[in-house]
Amino acid sequence: MVAHMNAVALARTIETGDAWFYSRSRGTLWRKGESSGHVQRVIEIRVDCDQDALLLRVEQRGEGACHTGRRSCFYRSLNLAQPADGPISLTFVDADKVFDPDKVYGRPMKR
Amino acid sequence: MVAHMNAVALARTIETGDAWFYSRSRGTLWRKGESSGHVQRVIEIRVDCDQDALLLRVEQRGEGACHTGRRSCFYRSLNLAQPADGPISLTFVDADKVFDPDKVYGRPMKR
Repeated sequence: MVAHMNAVALARTIETGDAWFYSRSRGTLWRKGESSGHVQRVIEIRVDCDQDALLLRVEQRGEGACHTGRRSCFYRSLNLAQPADGPISLTFVDADKVFDPDKVYGRPMKR
Repeated sequence: MVAHMNAVALARTIETGDAWFYSRSRGTLWRKGESSGHVQRVIEIRVDCDQDALLLRVEQRGEGACHTGRRSCFYRSLNLAQPADGPISLTFVDADKVFDPDKVYGRPMKR
């Protein structure tokens, strides 16, 4: 998964060992798994050369990280054989749902 | 490594099989490896659930992807045992230089 952190989210992640992020749309900190229970325990955090990206290696508690019910958010592959100037088509890969998001999040939403 | 793509960079990546990106600071498209020769041949592109992030699986031609001379840009790990409110310290991990950036890029620069 990909999410945004600010300085407070990073400090809280280091302090607690749980992955915390910052929602730019909502303007709030959030702990991964606070709704779903699918907490991420942090094993390692790496920073990239220009120090504007972090790579978290985590132990994913619960069934999956993606709000759509999949283990990973990256469950679709781009068809690379398609004409570059046309619409891009996608193929589902590793896309089995490992949990029911309506049950986990408590209300139907667009996924 | 992490880099930005726009629609043209993505189309050119699909068309050529080489990873193309878009530099927001320079306002130009760039092909990974155009200076260094360290081209990335694309094996697979995945898109995330909300379709604002792409994950490229590539064959890295040449020694490494990072402009600092490392294979990966993520060659430093955050010390997780440090106090959360203090400065963050880093440890070098998998940080051996696999090429000399001054030789590859032709002039000394800050890395």
